[in-house]
Amino acid sequence: MRLLVINPNISEDVTALIRSEAQRSAAPGTEVVVRTAGHGVEYIETRFESLVAAGAVAEIIAEHAAGDAENRVDGVVVAAFGDPGMPALKELADVPVVGITEAALCAAALQGQRFSIIAISDRITAWYRDCVERFGFGGRLASIRSIKGALRGIGSVQEDFRPTLVELARLAVTEDGADVVILAGAPLAGLARDVADEIPVPVVDGIGAGVRLVEAVVGLASGSHRAGSFAAPPLKHRAGLSPALNAAIDAAQSARLAVSGTAS
Amino acid sequence: MRLLVINPNISEDVTALIRSEAQRSAAPGTEVVVRTAGHGVEYIETRFESLVAAGAVAEIIAEHAAGDAENRVDGVVVAAFGDPGMPALKELADVPVVGITEAALCAAALQGQRFSIIAISDRITAWYRDCVERFGFGGRLASIRSIKGALRGIGSVQEDFRPTLVELARLAVTEDGADVVILAGAPLAGLARDVADEIPVPVVDGIGAGVRLVEAVVGLASGSHRAGSFAAPPLKHRAGLSPALNAAIDAAQSARLAVSGTAS
Amino acid sequence: MRLLVINPNISEDVTALIRSEAQRSAAPGTEVVVRTAGHGVEYIETRFESLVAAGAVAEIIAEHAAGDAENRVDGVVVAAFGDPGMPALKELADVPVVGITEAALCAAALQGQRFSIIAISDRITAWYRDCVERFGFGGRLASIRSIKGALRGIGSVQEDFRPTLVELARLAVTEDGADVVILAGAPLAGLARDVADEIPVPVVDGIGAGVRLVEAVVGLASGSHRAGSFAAPPLKHRAGLSPALNAAIDAAQSARLAVSGTAS
Amino acid sequence: MRLLVINPNISEDVTALIRSEAQRSAAPGTEVVVRTAGHGVEYIETRFESLVAAGAVAEIIAEHAAGDAENRVDGVVVAAFGDPGMPALKELADVPVVGITEAALCAAALQGQRFSIIAISDRITAWYRDCVERFGFGGRLASIRSIKGALRGIGSVQEDFRPTLVELARLAVTEDGADVVILAGAPLAGLARDVADEIPVPVVDGIGAGVRLVEAVVGLASGSHRAGSFAAPPLKHRAGLSPALNAAIDAAQSARLAVSGTAS
Amino acid sequence: MRLLVINPNISEDVTALIRSEAQRSAAPGTEVVVRTAGHGVEYIETRFESLVAAGAVAEIIAEHAAGDAENRVDGVVVAAFGDPGMPALKELADVPVVGITEAALCAAALQGQRFSIIAISDRITAWYRDCVERFGFGGRLASIRSIKGALRGIGSVQEDFRPTLVELARLAVTEDGADVVILAGAPLAGLARDVADEIPVPVVDGIGAGVRLVEAVVGLASGSHRAGSFAAPPLKHRAGLSPALNAAIDAAQSARLAVSGTAS
Amino acid sequence: MRLLVINPNISEDVTALIRSEAQRSAAPGTEVVVRTAGHGVEYIETRFESLVAAGAVAEIIAEHAAGDAENRVDGVVVAAFGDPGMPALKELADVPVVGITEAALCAAALQGQRFSIIAISDRITAWYRDCVERFGFGGRLASIRSIKGALRGIGSVQEDFRPTLVELARLAVTEDGADVVILAGAPLAGLARDVADEIPVPVVDGIGAGVRLVEAVVGLASGSHRAGSFAAPPLKHRAGLSPALNAAIDAAQSARLAVSGTAS
Repeated sequence: MRLLVINPNISEDVTALIRSEAQRSAAPGTEVVVRTAGHGVEYIETRFESLVAAGAVAEIIAEHAAGDAENRVDGVVVAAFGDPGMPALKELADVPVVGITEAALCAAALQGQRFSIIAISDRITAWYRDCVERFGFGGRLASIRSIKGALRGIGSVQEDFRPTLVELARLAVTEDGADVVILAGAPLAGLARDVADEIPVPVVDGIGAGVRLVEAVVGLASGSHRAGSFAAPPLKHRAGLSPALNAAIDAAQSARLAVSGTAS
Repeated sequence: MRLLVINPNISEDVTALIRSEAQRSAAPGTEVVVRTAGHGVEYIETRFESLVAAGAVAEIIAEHAAGDAENRVDGVVVAAFGDPGMPALKELADVPVVGITEAALCAAALQGQRFSIIAISDRITAWYRDCVERFGFGGRLASIRSIKGALRGIGSVQEDFRPTLVELARLAVTEDGADVVILAGAPLAGLARDVADEIPVPVVDGIGAGVRLVEAVVGLASGSHRAGSFAAPPLKHRAGLSPALNAAIDAAQSARLAVSGTAS
Repeated sequence: MRLLVINPNISEDVTALIRSEAQRSAAPGTEVVVRTAGHGVEYIETRFESLVAAGAVAEIIAEHAAGDAENRVDGVVVAAFGDPGMPALKELADVPVVGITEAALCAAALQGQRFSIIAISDRITAWYRDCVERFGFGGRLASIRSIKGALRGIGSVQEDFRPTLVELARLAVTEDGADVVILAGAPLAGLARDVADEIPVPVVDGIGAGVRLVEAVVGLASGSHRAGSFAAPPLKHRAGLSPALNAAIDAAQSARLAVSGTAS
Repeated sequence: MRLLVINPNISEDVTALIRSEAQRSAAPGTEVVVRTAGHGVEYIETRFESLVAAGAVAEIIAEHAAGDAENRVDGVVVAAFGDPGMPALKELADVPVVGITEAALCAAALQGQRFSIIAISDRITAWYRDCVERFGFGGRLASIRSIKGALRGIGSVQEDFRPTLVELARLAVTEDGADVVILAGAPLAGLARDVADEIPVPVVDGIGAGVRLVEAVVGLASGSHRAGSFAAPPLKHRAGLSPALNAAIDAAQSARLAVSGTAS
Repeated sequence: MRLLVINPNISEDVTALIRSEAQRSAAPGTEVVVRTAGHGVEYIETRFESLVAAGAVAEIIAEHAAGDAENRVDGVVVAAFGDPGMPALKELADVPVVGITEAALCAAALQGQRFSIIAISDRITAWYRDCVERFGFGGRLASIRSIKGALRGIGSVQEDFRPTLVELARLAVTEDGADVVILAGAPLAGLARDVADEIPVPVVDGIGAGVRLVEAVVGLASGSHRAGSFAAPPLKHRAGLSPALNAAIDAAQSARLAVSGTAS
Repeated sequence: MRLLVINPNISEDVTALIRSEAQRSAAPGTEVVVRTAGHGVEYIETRFESLVAAGAVAEIIAEHAAGDAENRVDGVVVAAFGDPGMPALKELADVPVVGITEAALCAAALQGQRFSIIAISDRITAWYRDCVERFGFGGRLASIRSIKGALRGIGSVQEDFRPTLVELARLAVTEDGADVVILAGAPLAGLARDVADEIPVPVVDGIGAGVRLVEAVVGLASGSHRAGSFAAPPLKHRAGLSPALNAAIDAAQSARLAVSGTAS
């Protein structure tokens, strides 16, 4: 199985964290291809930054969705908490495209009733809340707790704030009733392994959850969307899109037409 | 008052419909500037098409948000039902940015308890439903009814399907319990005026609602977002954004810092 | 355009505040007629007081709905937060009847995701919460914060408690995550203008929102309710109603029958 | 135990049906006092008619709440489905005041998971839906089904439409998934007993539920509201209220002050 | 009327508290039969303990549901807060089976808008919250507050922690906005009577509510479930169930078939 | 990795279907141990049957949770749609315990926005709906459609009703707006593979989802519950439980104490 893991931010040091944790999390036999957004911001904290990132992620998915055989992947992980471009980007490829938030929420929901999210900035929490509510789990969200201080650098958050992050997680359990804690955001990739002993409930890593749950969904081979609201966009006049996007949409529409002509 | 009304689609004939109804709806003294998306699709029906459109709308807002004085506007209407890029785009300017869906939903909610949406394609309804639920009015949505057949052309939908649209609206009242009907989508701009007599409840036009409600919000002069989740994105490293977007973000951040330094 | 703005309380000093802010908020060309409840209490804090006020408001609407031509208005604003008699009173006239709460909620929802309400008494908050939930925006309510102390007089609340009110609004932003703050209650009419600089998010004035949004809805000319749950009450035996109410219901029923006979 | 059962409509023939079923339902030892609204309409179908009825019910409660000892009651049943004036009227007396809808909803919820309401007119269903949602049971409402035809007379609905009503109830079970059926509205008082054998799930009579559940709540003697949002309205200037209402509010406020002075 | 009141825990001292309060609460003419779980734990605090208890309660209901005439009862109260086995156990008997939580929630909802639950342990609160949300009243729950310290013995909680419990209830009113307080859990049976004067809102006792509301529902004689999701389980192969359960299911299926053959 | 897959029904032919699909779905290196309930019914259709099954499942989990090393498993799949005993059974073992419904819901939610469930009996649908709503996905449920006729045998449902099941799935897409279809119930294990080509959206198999998602969660190694509402039940007096359950609870409590003593 070959997975494309996309860092929707432009920060190469976070890409390195993502790569490392994705490879540690992947099952034997899973190959992980990691890509960094071609444009955007250092790390997403706001709804608008997420929208910009979604555009960058779309380009990368498109390159792999419509590319030649050697470029093809079996599934895609969008590796920023808050799931930029989701669920829209699921239309763009005929393989599963999953955000790390939705993956982490499922991993948490399968292990407990209520969960908390530990975030690296205060500003980021509103966007995270939107994301949880849109997924349907607003009623299971115990709390979102966040670092309040300024960050020294996005690549060193987990070392700079380790005790703070553990304390926030513990408070989520004792004060907010969390059964599971999610360490949110790619900059925290891999931290869950280190601090699990210090937090008395299951701790979910976004990147790990993204990789593992996409592996599971790819493994299910549920079939593709030839109808419904995630089928390829209908044929129509387009203008000004990148060559990659145009090719990806063309490919998706062709595949759909081919299938519809025979089986549906 | 000067309003920027953006057609998030690339279809100039729909832009003409939007311009016409926007001008008819505007209060005396309101100047309407209408712009068409620089890239995208003929008309948005899916979540991904909406994401593409959001990027195109962002560019246009940015040009006006950061431009010189003669380019400045007092408010922005995003004139596609489904509100591409909302609410993220509200971060990008220090004037009200409102989608025609959220405007139409408010206009309907102030006139009745439950409302229905009449849509021009079946595929489009899933995206509309997302939009209503995200706004908070899922519980007041009586139904979404849509034209089932193929469209001859996006610019002639309202003349090609007039009786069908009226019938769908009437069924929404008698079968679904709608107190108000929303004729959704810029391609239907202006139709509400023509068919109001044939539909026994208030009929809301998206473009009209967008213009009128933005006028109201601009008139309130509630102040701008210097804090909270719609303030300008925090200062951070960026790369690969268009000159217009970069300038707009720079401007927003400067304005915020200036204000924060003095009053907050 | 001629708007009827009704103070559902018997306090003339609050009526003066309402009149002043309504006139400042109104667009050029809007004439504002302000009326005070003929019976009731000094200011509404409870569900029962709101019920009493609803009866008083109904009488005033009825006088204008069924009166002779010179008495007619194009829209009605019910100017107490909590919207006494809503949405029932929308049945009573064939022009838009809007409460200042629903108007303020729409104005807030168009400017941000979550909002807080600042109230003048602790007792009043339960009624406000009911009102927000009934409108459908319970999920977007960040908090309701209120003055805890006793009031010296209802007409001087905003001057007596100005710093407290600003502090409550600031806490709503920093502690509760409000993107927009609503200064609730007619006794605070006009305060938003004065304190906007001290509160780092948009601040909505109930009276201003009521006037501006009714102007918008009247301007839309969406048509009247000849069917659905806001049409005039069906013809049936009545007893003991005031002459004004009887006349208003008669008029509404006649209008509906006339229309139904021809167009529906 | 002495219960006041109020018909919020002016129809004496419905009062007779209410009296009959209330007496059959009451436990031994319960005395039932039945009163008819002093003003209002023949039967409530709309939100506005319900508001008018609420005013009439308030007057009757006030007469009994503040009257001399021989007039006092231990609990009040508001005997129109849709619960006019609820929950506001609970503030007006220091004894339980319960609507037949909320009583019927509780009786249904204790006997099954989802329930349907059978109504006597189509127009009435919107008001009923509001009422169920406000109570919190929107998610347990399987359906509201109603008679579509015109009524010959409000006092003879149950005999005129018996087979229709049974058929609607059966469809609620087989088509809508109802575990329990509520025969709504005082005009159907007593019908549940007659048709229970023909409907394969429990059938709840509104009047019966109102009487039985108020008996239960009165029997619990849970104590009165000296604080919280159902305590007597705070002391303040009033004008234009009826002598009965004035006396009832005075009495409630005195009682609250007396108690607060000693125990809270 | 003969009611079976089941203590789902194995603690005889709690059974004594339950018996005492059940008898005090019951109407004249109601006979109360109290039984203690045959297996299980001292007191239920967790979802799994509740599942174990549900099995024990099922056995006792089965013994009475299918027993000879002298064993028959008219209704069943499951006397542990959290309602172990609900609503499943309603399928097992053709008489009303009600949990004390659902009864207390109804008693509270009929007396106010929002309520709080006072619990005897912190661990127990998650299970209670599940129960309230499943019943549909999550939106009316003001708070759950609990004793934090270790218990000396389950039979002496109310004497050991009386001041703490009163203080928690008062905080629920003043801090959380509770209109009604529920003293949860059979170990607190009877306490409400003692502390009502010290808590300024109605105080509901679970056992009292269970007995009174089952009396009300039994009195309504709404009929049994011959269809819908609470009818007796369909005929099918079974193995390994206790004789009592087998007999009860056989009896329920026979009764249903007999009825269906004639009336439905 | 060693997974325990439990058939909560007593039907050995369904166990064979489960085993077959579980083995086909499992990743290389996963060993699947399949067990059949020791008591219960042929197939669960009702809430009470689910409660009985939960007890049988608890015994099997207990045998493996507390057994000697060779009996130990790394995760548990409860292989009946409707998730009998969930989430309570998660307390009983320190490895992930997942129901096939929650697994299938996650698999569906990661592949689309709204999903439908295809069920093998009408009676079963109420229980399924409860389960979806409790998980938090009521708002994403497009529909539950079911076979209406009687079953010839539980082991042959998928061959007897193949065309019906495909037709129900297609209607869910075209009529109800499903983006993903779940073929519910262990008796349909393996069918998704066969019919995927005939259904134009992804089709999720419950057993496959259960196995794949438990593999994913086990692989995440998130840590165990030493605190929160899924930790082992607190130490307390117990009576009448089976040796296996007693041993499992003892083991869980010991493990928790050991860990708490050191790390928390």
